[in-house]
Amino acid sequence: MKKQVAIGIDVGGTNTVFGFVDKEGNCIYESSIITNAELNANQLFERLFKNINDSFIIYRDIYELIGIGIGAPNANYYKGTVEQPPNLNWGYVNVLEIVKKYSPLPSAITNDANAAAIGEMIFGAAKGMKNFIVITLGTGLGSGIVVNEDLVYGADGFAGEIGHTIVDPNGRECGCGRKGCLETYASATGIRRTVYELICKNNLPSELRDIGFNQLTAKNIFEAASRGDKLALDAFDYTAKILGLKLADAVEHLSPEAIILFGGLALAGDLILVPTKQYMEGYLLNIFRNKVKIISSALLGSNAAVLGASALIWNELKK
Amino acid sequence: MKKQVAIGIDVGGTNTVFGFVDKEGNCIYESSIITNAELNANQLFERLFKNINDSFIIYRDIYELIGIGIGAPNANYYKGTVEQPPNLNWGYVNVLEIVKKYSPLPSAITNDANAAAIGEMIFGAAKGMKNFIVITLGTGLGSGIVVNEDLVYGADGFAGEIGHTIVDPNGRECGCGRKGCLETYASATGIRRTVYELICKNNLPSELRDIGFNQLTAKNIFEAASRGDKLALDAFDYTAKILGLKLADAVEHLSPEAIILFGGLALAGDLILVPTKQYMEGYLLNIFRNKVKIISSALLGSNAAVLGASALIWNELKK
Repeated sequence: MKKQVAIGIDVGGTNTVFGFVDKEGNCIYESSIITNAELNANQLFERLFKNINDSFIIYRDIYELIGIGIGAPNANYYKGTVEQPPNLNWGYVNVLEIVKKYSPLPSAITNDANAAAIGEMIFGAAKGMKNFIVITLGTGLGSGIVVNEDLVYGADGFAGEIGHTIVDPNGRECGCGRKGCLETYASATGIRRTVYELICKNNLPSELRDIGFNQLTAKNIFEAASRGDKLALDAFDYTAKILGLKLADAVEHLSPEAIILFGGLALAGDLILVPTKQYMEGYLLNIFRNKVKIISSALLGSNAAVLGASALIWNELKK
Repeated sequence: MKKQVAIGIDVGGTNTVFGFVDKEGNCIYESSIITNAELNANQLFERLFKNINDSFIIYRDIYELIGIGIGAPNANYYKGTVEQPPNLNWGYVNVLEIVKKYSPLPSAITNDANAAAIGEMIFGAAKGMKNFIVITLGTGLGSGIVVNEDLVYGADGFAGEIGHTIVDPNGRECGCGRKGCLETYASATGIRRTVYELICKNNLPSELRDIGFNQLTAKNIFEAASRGDKLALDAFDYTAKILGLKLADAVEHLSPEAIILFGGLALAGDLILVPTKQYMEGYLLNIFRNKVKIISSALLGSNAAVLGASALIWNELKK
């Protein structure tokens, strides 16, 4: 009998990554193509499935494909659509209908943070958990919420936008058109803004004063902090304070067993995990204190997004 | 064949109300006893079941009792306990074990806001909805969250404390020992505090300036506002602004179909519903705008709490 694998696809603004993932979360093959964000969705999937089919030829005697899981920005699980994605010139498009043109396999789509949450549940740090939240700290802040072992999609399929809860209605301008959203503080972009705010406010010497805003990365800040740069350390502390405040709100809604941090800024490890946990505990109602773990993703690594996308299919089969 | 009814019990700091409720939400009998908050839980339930049994005698030839649903402060659905309730001298007590001494019927317990949410789902304004939030605006602010037709209890049974999400970490002192919790602004007590803050801040004439803080009620403020008292109207507007801000956060977590307002302050109707909705829309991420209804409870009336408590049992039977 052939061994079963699911196709995991992660659509990004620059590259689209795909791979074949077995039930245990082993990625037996992974590759990527350029997304070409200015072209429409059909053109991407036509090229993508040519690549997938070519890649699978050498596996087809041993493996059987069982489904296609897709992570994409602004994806709607209920409708199979992607709606006005910020980095792709797609407009409103039904992706699952396009996929049907190229493959008869069952398929499912959700946004990347939701895919990460299902990936953690099936293969990663949330194995065995029934209630948890995944926070992706990349360019923005995404979130996937799991309640009673099911991803929370809400009435319209768009639930889990913790990055757009409001820290301060008069705060930093957000890409969404509003002000003071959590992601303007707690994300790779947010911590860069915090570094620049601290440079304005105080006279601490810092190696970060030599880097232009567009050149500054979360990695620069992490490396400076690791070398003891006080301004960089203060930037992590401020990020953790705001994140801890809003994660306390999330806990008061949902009382999860754990909050899992995923993505670029999460790579800073204890520099972000430890103070975020401390601040969150300080902001929590007493009945929730010392109950909720804050941990790193167990899907860190190059194929985390593909594992997450494929987990969508493995999760459907479990039902 | 006898018609089935569930016993609904609502334990309050002053009175404990009980009633017999059929599958359609008709309360065929309701009564109450004094709680005696300084006595222990066993003493309450001993008196209560004597009353329940005496009351049921005239119904027993026509009706059959099928279970006992209880709403009580700080109740934990998973454990059957009540833990350090603020207005009762009970400490930590397993209520369902006590109930077993007096009745062999199946029983379930949860806090009053969760009972209200299940009541709305089974008998009230949320009939047919899969995702909604009930907010109880009484002395404090309670909440019950329903996702995929199930109440969200979280990992520990205490989920749904939206009243203790933080508006301002340096804000008003809360009974929970922290500062700036939503319920210090949006509740019957919160709007009284707002009236006093407005009296301090401005020189608007108002009939509310003649009422001591301890004598001032949400009803006074509602009646003054209904007569066009500008200060009272401003108090409703400020309450709605803060509530709208934090309900937007809740929508961004959960994307519910509706938010249902229940309890004392909700009786103000459009005075609170309309501006809360307006502010919430202004604070919402664009994808959630004009989707979420804010409506009044359909359980308003003297036996709302009993209906909610009995609905716990009717809901278990549906599973």
